[in-house]
Amino acid sequence: MISVDRADIAFQLFDALPTASLSALPRFADYDRAAIDGVLDMAERVAMDHFLPHAADLDLNEPKFVDGKVVIDERVGAALAAYREAGFFGASFDQELGGAQMPETVRSAVGFIFSMANIATAAYPFLTTAAANLIDAFGSPEQKARFLKPMVEGRFFGTMCLSEPQAGSSLADITTKAEPQEDGSYFLTGRKMWISGGDQEISENIVHMVLAKIPGSPPGVKGISLFIVPKFLVEEDGSIGLRNGVALAGLNHKMGYRGTTNAALNFGEDGPCRGYPVGDPGKGLVYMFQMMNEARIGVGLGAAALGAAGYRASLAYARERLQGRHPDNKDASSPQIPIIGHADVKRLLLAQKTAVEGSLALLLYAAFLVDAIKAAPSEEARHEIRILLDLLTPIAKSWPSEFCLEANKHAIQVLGGYGYTRDYPVERLYRDNRLNAIHEGTHGIQALDLLGRKVMQENGAGMKTLAARIMADVTQAHGLEGLTAHAADLAAHLAEAVATTGKLAAKVGSNPRPGLANATIYLDMMGHVVIAWMWLRQATAATRRLGSPDPDRNFLDGKLAACRYFFAYELPRTRTQRALLDSLDDTALKMRPEWF
Amino acid sequence: MISVDRADIAFQLFDALPTASLSALPRFADYDRAAIDGVLDMAERVAMDHFLPHAADLDLNEPKFVDGKVVIDERVGAALAAYREAGFFGASFDQELGGAQMPETVRSAVGFIFSMANIATAAYPFLTTAAANLIDAFGSPEQKARFLKPMVEGRFFGTMCLSEPQAGSSLADITTKAEPQEDGSYFLTGRKMWISGGDQEISENIVHMVLAKIPGSPPGVKGISLFIVPKFLVEEDGSIGLRNGVALAGLNHKMGYRGTTNAALNFGEDGPCRGYPVGDPGKGLVYMFQMMNEARIGVGLGAAALGAAGYRASLAYARERLQGRHPDNKDASSPQIPIIGHADVKRLLLAQKTAVEGSLALLLYAAFLVDAIKAAPSEEARHEIRILLDLLTPIAKSWPSEFCLEANKHAIQVLGGYGYTRDYPVERLYRDNRLNAIHEGTHGIQALDLLGRKVMQENGAGMKTLAARIMADVTQAHGLEGLTAHAADLAAHLAEAVATTGKLAAKVGSNPRPGLANATIYLDMMGHVVIAWMWLRQATAATRRLGSPDPDRNFLDGKLAACRYFFAYELPRTRTQRALLDSLDDTALKMRPEWF
Repeated sequence: MISVDRADIAFQLFDALPTASLSALPRFADYDRAAIDGVLDMAERVAMDHFLPHAADLDLNEPKFVDGKVVIDERVGAALAAYREAGFFGASFDQELGGAQMPETVRSAVGFIFSMANIATAAYPFLTTAAANLIDAFGSPEQKARFLKPMVEGRFFGTMCLSEPQAGSSLADITTKAEPQEDGSYFLTGRKMWISGGDQEISENIVHMVLAKIPGSPPGVKGISLFIVPKFLVEEDGSIGLRNGVALAGLNHKMGYRGTTNAALNFGEDGPCRGYPVGDPGKGLVYMFQMMNEARIGVGLGAAALGAAGYRASLAYARERLQGRHPDNKDASSPQIPIIGHADVKRLLLAQKTAVEGSLALLLYAAFLVDAIKAAPSEEARHEIRILLDLLTPIAKSWPSEFCLEANKHAIQVLGGYGYTRDYPVERLYRDNRLNAIHEGTHGIQALDLLGRKVMQENGAGMKTLAARIMADVTQAHGLEGLTAHAADLAAHLAEAVATTGKLAAKVGSNPRPGLANATIYLDMMGHVVIAWMWLRQATAATRRLGSPDPDRNFLDGKLAACRYFFAYELPRTRTQRALLDSLDDTALKMRPEWF
Repeated sequence: MISVDRADIAFQLFDALPTASLSALPRFADYDRAAIDGVLDMAERVAMDHFLPHAADLDLNEPKFVDGKVVIDERVGAALAAYREAGFFGASFDQELGGAQMPETVRSAVGFIFSMANIATAAYPFLTTAAANLIDAFGSPEQKARFLKPMVEGRFFGTMCLSEPQAGSSLADITTKAEPQEDGSYFLTGRKMWISGGDQEISENIVHMVLAKIPGSPPGVKGISLFIVPKFLVEEDGSIGLRNGVALAGLNHKMGYRGTTNAALNFGEDGPCRGYPVGDPGKGLVYMFQMMNEARIGVGLGAAALGAAGYRASLAYARERLQGRHPDNKDASSPQIPIIGHADVKRLLLAQKTAVEGSLALLLYAAFLVDAIKAAPSEEARHEIRILLDLLTPIAKSWPSEFCLEANKHAIQVLGGYGYTRDYPVERLYRDNRLNAIHEGTHGIQALDLLGRKVMQENGAGMKTLAARIMADVTQAHGLEGLTAHAADLAAHLAEAVATTGKLAAKVGSNPRPGLANATIYLDMMGHVVIAWMWLRQATAATRRLGSPDPDRNFLDGKLAACRYFFAYELPRTRTQRALLDSLDDTALKMRPEWF
């Protein structure tokens, strides 16, 4: 019932974006169109053959804590072995480390496919890549040899240990301690919470990337350092040594994402827990945040993939399920029609299509920016792209988390009572997707990041670049048949959004609390404008494709209709949001706790 | 963590509505304010002591099919025994039947309390009441004696058997057959689907209310008749007789509402299945629809209750949980604050409060209309109320189902990662609530009912009554301090909504397909206008209360702030929706299946 829409992925990569052009870079020389298609073929095969088949069972039989060990459906290990054999653990890393030097754009498309198939199983390698990225960027050569290489090979898995029971959104308040030892290592003591992949018996070892405070450090984020804490110590020759003092304190039982072990971990409680400092003391959160863009884009990608899985499942169902007749057909003895013929079902499918494909467009656009930094001709050009990526990241994380969850809600609705049962995948996808607005920084935290930090950065440089890029695409679209009105519409919305941004930024600068009180509304508003831009870009690419020889007309007409839908049903909402933002409404801010 | 807000229920019943005035009617003479408070005390006690404690376990250990029988956590039976002892099974029925003649308004408040505590357990008596209502209204005296009386006593439970695997939204397409027998009874054969409470061992007997077709009947809805099909035949003396040929075919495994058995039933497969016709042949669906208002209001009430449970749980959490600091506090060593101090958390709580209390206001208003029909002085007055109730019913069913689900989403967000775990109730409430937009007519079906039927009824009589009632309340509010702007705002929105309705109704009359293509948007738009009206009514009542001796200022200030929130954050959205509706947008209608 869940199937990968390869036509859309190809369109997104090669029509809406110039992904094949990346092969002009020496680093990506191997990735011409044919090679990329080969990578996607392989990803689809591994995902459909090894990830999808156990997704429903894994949800029903979540990992269990038995005799001190985590027991997981053994098909998870088998799937990850197939993933490893296909070389995906090392996809983005340097060839000299054993990696494949895959462009982030392509790696994102691959991640999308695996997340569609089974996001819970896919989480283990994704977390491993996130942890490995940190060591790659900030670790010592010795740490890279000892820990990074086996992660790139898929032998060691990784985790990110940030939150603690009393410090979730507020990482400044972590209390895990790291005491320096004579040999340059540290002994860690403390408790970490919400550790995905926190324990398992699949990989030879687990490399925990742990935030902790060295005694005597300043309070707040400046006192946070980053440590490598392996589950098993690793000898100099790379062999597995003694068990380190990091222990599973318990598993969390979640609404969704149930196949991904989520654990509370104790450090240094059952014995000394050795950690190795990464980079400089006090820079732990700075390092984390330098890797955060990719992690947050990864969350958005997972949300989009879950949305896509539900969309494809509900689309397949809507084509098959017979129910009812058109409202102008009064002949009760006429046959029932497939529900895809009902306007409201088409609306539910269009809402999913625009959310899912609009999200994927944005996420691949953001991934392409990551690659474009590598291709940029100057530090100035690199900087401009980085600032734009910084600005887009909270949107790329949050918009899919919100609106692809909504898409999953619609997918259930298309299936009706059947969709509400565990016989179909859509209820599971909906449960899984509910996490994405919470982890890697909640929706509200992303909003503060966008309005309180990214918009303010360097006098609004990110916003200026964004506006310039949108206007360049508006100009392109303006001359194309059928797109003139959409182009003008987007330009008008953008101008209003820029004006609202200016007004809010001035307020935030002088008085942060009222300025930031409606940051979440601002995030949603900007997200809609950005997704409208993504739809204009797709409609532009589709229109051009229609003029090429032998186009796939149905596919391209679908893109144009989806663009019309988004501009008619979704984009206009932002006007109401801007009116609220412009008024600096303080109803929520002034609400007193005792009034609830 | 879940607690009943008795202050709000009292405000809704006695300040926003004149519930105590119902005791002027002979039928309700027993229900003065003190008696109603006593009923609510009893409901709260039974709900908190017997329903709430097993709610989480019941969700984790759903009913199972063992050796041909349904095995359910035995606390369900114990809770229902307490419910029976308190007399709630017979709440609304005539005293001569053993009922309590409780006003529907009061019964709704009672239902709200039980649904908050444990909607899965509460479903058994609610379904029994729905089935009993049908027999009460359309059954013969003999059927009332044999089946209704033990239902009123809570000894027999009831179910509604409408859907079949191939006929969910389209009941015209049911194929269950009822063959007449010489003794006046019928033999039924067929399969029913989604039967809540479809089998269990708690009650002495189960009375299934079954829609079926008598051979030779016309196609479509006019061929549908209603039958009583007991699980066990009942002898003339009321004793339980032989097992009837209705058999459990399987249990459905749902995302939520897991404590309520949901079954597929076979009729006449394992032996003859006897049914007794209710009323006239061919009128089955007409009878169902005469009872549908109360059933649909019941669904809305359940949705509101689930929203309320999540709101109360997240409010309690937000007062206790320490996390972060105000954005203008740069002192990392200052203590963390309760998250209820953060503007965005207050927004999430206000969104819940307005959805939940706005819904409850509407549902009690609708229930009061049911009572008011009994109190009306003339057939003309009764008719006017009935038409208004008809119009409000799809809104009262759908708006809470949509926006109290959204409230449950927010409740999870307030709890963050904790909210996503099964250690807290909010994820369960969210799963439970997802059903409400599906059963008793999906969201899309409600929209067609509203725009295609209720709005068109008697030349828009319902809409005229609604507008007149809203304007009467606008006039009341207009003179009150702080409410003038809201009153004017609502009047303007109402005028626009009426204009949009006129435009759509004209289209629906001439060409139903384009006219109804955006019926769901219309439903949501009208819902928001109606809920804004409910908030203006509550703000009016609160303002008056503030002028009375010794008012509860915090509670009343909360009502006024919530009204401001709804008018600032929610009501303005409807303008965008009306613009779309006015344009008769046909993007969804014209989308071709092959374009997806």
